[in-house]
Amino acid sequence: MDTAIKNIFYPKTISVVGASSKEKSIGYEILKSIKNYGYTGNVFPVNPKADEILGFKCWKSILDIEEKIDLAIIVVPKKFVDESIDLLIRKDVQAIILITAGFKETGEEGAGNEKKLLHKIKESNARMIGPNCMGVINTLDSIRLNATFVAEYPQKGGIAFLSQSGALGAAVLNSLRETDIRFAHFISIGNKADVNEIELLKFWLNDDNIKIITFYLESFENGIELLRSYSKSGNKKPLIILKAGKTEAGMKAASSHTGALSSDEKLTDSLLKQFGVIRVDTISEMFNTAKGFENFPMPRDNKVAVVTNAGGPAILAVDKIEERNLVLADLSSNTKNKLKEIVHPEGSLNNPIDLLPGGSPEIYKKTNEILLLDDNVDAVISIFVEPVMVDAMSVVESVNTIKSSKPIFQVCMPLPEFWEEYSNSSERRIPIFKNPEDPAIIISNILQYEKNKREKRIFSKPFISQLSNSGIAEFLDQNEVFDLCKQYGIPLVKSLTVNPKNIANINIDFPLVIKGQSKNVVHKSDLNAVKLNIKNDTEIKKAVDEINNSFVKAGFELDEILIQQFVKTKHELLVGGYRDTSFGPIVMFGSGGKYVEYLDDTQIRSAYLTGKDLDEIIDETKIGRIIKGVRGEDRVDINKLKMIIMGISSMMLDHEEIFEIDLNPIIIDDQNNYIAVDIRIKSIKPT
Amino acid sequence: MDTAIKNIFYPKTISVVGASSKEKSIGYEILKSIKNYGYTGNVFPVNPKADEILGFKCWKSILDIEEKIDLAIIVVPKKFVDESIDLLIRKDVQAIILITAGFKETGEEGAGNEKKLLHKIKESNARMIGPNCMGVINTLDSIRLNATFVAEYPQKGGIAFLSQSGALGAAVLNSLRETDIRFAHFISIGNKADVNEIELLKFWLNDDNIKIITFYLESFENGIELLRSYSKSGNKKPLIILKAGKTEAGMKAASSHTGALSSDEKLTDSLLKQFGVIRVDTISEMFNTAKGFENFPMPRDNKVAVVTNAGGPAILAVDKIEERNLVLADLSSNTKNKLKEIVHPEGSLNNPIDLLPGGSPEIYKKTNEILLLDDNVDAVISIFVEPVMVDAMSVVESVNTIKSSKPIFQVCMPLPEFWEEYSNSSERRIPIFKNPEDPAIIISNILQYEKNKREKRIFSKPFISQLSNSGIAEFLDQNEVFDLCKQYGIPLVKSLTVNPKNIANINIDFPLVIKGQSKNVVHKSDLNAVKLNIKNDTEIKKAVDEINNSFVKAGFELDEILIQQFVKTKHELLVGGYRDTSFGPIVMFGSGGKYVEYLDDTQIRSAYLTGKDLDEIIDETKIGRIIKGVRGEDRVDINKLKMIIMGISSMMLDHEEIFEIDLNPIIIDDQNNYIAVDIRIKSIKPT
Repeated sequence: MDTAIKNIFYPKTISVVGASSKEKSIGYEILKSIKNYGYTGNVFPVNPKADEILGFKCWKSILDIEEKIDLAIIVVPKKFVDESIDLLIRKDVQAIILITAGFKETGEEGAGNEKKLLHKIKESNARMIGPNCMGVINTLDSIRLNATFVAEYPQKGGIAFLSQSGALGAAVLNSLRETDIRFAHFISIGNKADVNEIELLKFWLNDDNIKIITFYLESFENGIELLRSYSKSGNKKPLIILKAGKTEAGMKAASSHTGALSSDEKLTDSLLKQFGVIRVDTISEMFNTAKGFENFPMPRDNKVAVVTNAGGPAILAVDKIEERNLVLADLSSNTKNKLKEIVHPEGSLNNPIDLLPGGSPEIYKKTNEILLLDDNVDAVISIFVEPVMVDAMSVVESVNTIKSSKPIFQVCMPLPEFWEEYSNSSERRIPIFKNPEDPAIIISNILQYEKNKREKRIFSKPFISQLSNSGIAEFLDQNEVFDLCKQYGIPLVKSLTVNPKNIANINIDFPLVIKGQSKNVVHKSDLNAVKLNIKNDTEIKKAVDEINNSFVKAGFELDEILIQQFVKTKHELLVGGYRDTSFGPIVMFGSGGKYVEYLDDTQIRSAYLTGKDLDEIIDETKIGRIIKGVRGEDRVDINKLKMIIMGISSMMLDHEEIFEIDLNPIIIDDQNNYIAVDIRIKSIKPT
Repeated sequence: MDTAIKNIFYPKTISVVGASSKEKSIGYEILKSIKNYGYTGNVFPVNPKADEILGFKCWKSILDIEEKIDLAIIVVPKKFVDESIDLLIRKDVQAIILITAGFKETGEEGAGNEKKLLHKIKESNARMIGPNCMGVINTLDSIRLNATFVAEYPQKGGIAFLSQSGALGAAVLNSLRETDIRFAHFISIGNKADVNEIELLKFWLNDDNIKIITFYLESFENGIELLRSYSKSGNKKPLIILKAGKTEAGMKAASSHTGALSSDEKLTDSLLKQFGVIRVDTISEMFNTAKGFENFPMPRDNKVAVVTNAGGPAILAVDKIEERNLVLADLSSNTKNKLKEIVHPEGSLNNPIDLLPGGSPEIYKKTNEILLLDDNVDAVISIFVEPVMVDAMSVVESVNTIKSSKPIFQVCMPLPEFWEEYSNSSERRIPIFKNPEDPAIIISNILQYEKNKREKRIFSKPFISQLSNSGIAEFLDQNEVFDLCKQYGIPLVKSLTVNPKNIANINIDFPLVIKGQSKNVVHKSDLNAVKLNIKNDTEIKKAVDEINNSFVKAGFELDEILIQQFVKTKHELLVGGYRDTSFGPIVMFGSGGKYVEYLDDTQIRSAYLTGKDLDEIIDETKIGRIIKGVRGEDRVDINKLKMIIMGISSMMLDHEEIFEIDLNPIIIDDQNNYIAVDIRIKSIKPT
């Protein structure tokens, strides 16, 4: 375990460099938080002008302190940062949190200054969090450290929370009283110049105090490395990520605000899912899911029973159950018989069970118990809307006494007085939820994690650590392309390239396809450069002349003529690959042909594929479902398709110089053969 | 204006039939609410055993009251409902709210009892709300009526809220202190046996106290009639609908809980949008949107400026701006120059404007004012995350003093103490929002309404009021089909039906298509019953034999052989229509052919089409965008396609007996002609 990072969360001694006696200043507020929350270690404020702040003795300089400092928190103005870092390095402080802002996030000059700082840090033994961040929290009794300027008293729990945005972290901390989220650790990482989310993930995966890891990120430092680290741990703990900066404009905002370049949205979505990371849409989904993992037994499967005393909220719950691919449990007749004895005759015995407004604490408890005993039920959602005659607190507490290996998620829509009473009622409570839609979201996220955890990822190839591509990307010529494709088992159409001025010796049977080629033309259909179903020598000549004319007209040179066997098309597929600067080698599969952009039917995955990934990339496209079997048609051999996708994935992994591969279309012909008829490979030539 | 319905909301005298002196009973709580909220009229509780309840004189029977009763609220046990209704009718009470439950929602017997009640009501002058509902609220000073058993004190505003679920209505009322929603009217309609959402919509459209209408519905009583009424008013006021029971399982829950049959999800979505109704996903979106309409000037267009003091929340706002098809405003250089003078040099002058944590109330105000003056800005989202050194209340109040014809939506993420202080700070406040995503959702909903309002809907045909279809649906034979299609301008393939045992006199040129026909076989490709590209008489014979064999093998009779001209397919379209029991005649357009289910590329609309609808139904499909123009291809005549869709729509409107029309595929051939090659029409024959 990295000592420097351990010292960030578990320091025995802290120095606050830039501590201030001015109320409302960050240097004051952070010291106040440390004091009020009851930090168990020793605090050494540094301020050249003060003798004492908030009862702590003050030091003129970091070098005056004799004790070893585990963690230094810098809050000095920007112009003093350099000097402070120098002194901390001289003092051999290994863990530094630089709260001060004004670096990369402010533009080029700031980025330059940040780079210089980082250089200093890299040459020392120290590690740095920030700059432009808001500190760290550890709620565990042995530490009790709130080194942020948020004056809240977080309760301890098993959640670790990393926030790239200080403001969002603060907003979450400010809402703790209302939301009842319980952290073990919180950290704001700001510009993440040195320590980033990857190292913190590794640390938390190995820290037994952490049960669930949650990230709010605006950019990935090195996406594939994060996923690799997580995968290597066997997805040991749930990792829940809220990734902002989703859309194109969102990316611009992310870029101007944190100096980071976001990855493409679909890519992030596909790859997080592929590697078993839970991606959420909102802060509230993130922490509801975390609460689900921490406080409830795992549901074995997706069959859910709903209990309610009111129709409306149950309908909202059931809508969400369906949307999230869970199912309403089919109750056994035994269960229904038992329910009949306690449910009001005008209530409903079918799932959702409606107890009507008269449903009492005892009836709620018994109904839940009966449902939990049914083998067809994996989880219960118990919804209570407070009517005049039944008290919400009694129902919630009555259901909370049930012991079961299956989870019960309680939704409570009480009178307004309820929440304060519930907050104050006991030290350690089972969470209850405010919206009927919440539990289905939680259950589906938990199941997604559990399913992925069981699927061990075995990688055929080692990970490529170096993702940078410098140099000029150029298309390979068709001979190079064909050689590569043969090597990786890609089925090629019979073909031949000839000089447009000298066409002879064509040893492919008619009918033929004739294509004009120019290094500068990607979309041949724009130029009328493809002629199909050519049946004899006269037609060849005519086709070449027409292609030549349209090239000349468009101002391009006709480099060569490609002559291919004419294939009778049943389906057009696309298989391809490219290299992302953050997520590395990517493969793509979907509907091909010239309408590919319009059809919008492609899926992407990291090229580090498992068998499950191959099944999913095919099943999640429309064309994949079509070729897997439509009524009245012969079935296509899907294993051959998998071999082609694996071939392209291997090509991307073996050849780091390959930047982009585009097989569009791969045709399935009338005999159900796969034939790649148009292949482009772009490769980086070093400059 | 309907007097009975007016009396529900504006009664001068009320009788509570079944008033009770037992605390926590509904008959007691409802009277308490009426009293505590300060009803301005006279109250006449009816209870045979009490002389006085809560200070109101009690009456033994409704008939003992001498005064005219404007509104009677029945809360007696189910067994006394019949008698109470009889007496109210004798007393000539015109407005009745039946709170008591135990009717249609409990099953067949309850449905029978409800039907009997309804019969009684229909024969009288009375109108009834409920049964199984929770009452009515009117917050206006002249009335001040809270006739529900929710003990809250709603503040007055311009929103009317109708809830089909009592529990959901109660949950909304119980959250008023937190959410600060301001109603004019609230009504819970329960089983809506008599008065339903259509009549209440009409009433509210004409009530000047109502500015915005909101519905929580689990079923539509008569969807097309609701839309027609709204459309007839020229979409006079915003209508916002939250429709639950979305998915298949959700529909089952809706059905078992309120005895109502929900319409299909996609249909609801398409038709509400078509008629300019705002459909929302959550209660909070519903009321945030309503607040947006009530409290802010209308944005002219979709160009939004964002001001913030923190990066993270601004990114979430911008993500939502993009998702909702708004755009980040491109600020003028003049604006940027003015901003430069006040924004911190390390802040951002590009939209989103980042004022950094030091952004003060004055800087927030000035920045907002500068942005509002920019012609490129239609609305401002002003986000404030409370740091240590700037007070949230001052920022919010400072921005609230700005007067402008453009809206400013403030998002505030304050310290926890803020909300209570803000709630208590003044009588009438401009709403502020808790989530950075909220304003973009509100703006896009407002713009959708405004855009639709400007588009006057002109209908070519009168509305069909009778939507019931009784009788047996049968396929028309091909001659009837062809006659109908010719009449409505549908371009037909050259074709001929012949007896399979006697094939002669085929006056269509080769190549041909041969199809086997049987009234019982819809999907011909299942049976290998279609043979393409038949080039001579020998091939005809072979094709017919093969078709006959596969029919015999599958146990069907081969009724006739359809011979058609062979069309060279470039694209396959689908145009169709069907009749929904709630929403009436529907048309459909999209990708056709045998993969139609897999491609999942169809759009539906009410057959009462406008020009805008025609454009949208085409533009919202992938095939529509493909045929409208792909690079390197001749353009297809879209007007001809519109004529075909209009033809099918007219056929559905003119022929009420037609239940379903299916033109799949309509082929676009290599000459860009449209040719319908396979047409099925199902028509109702009265039994």
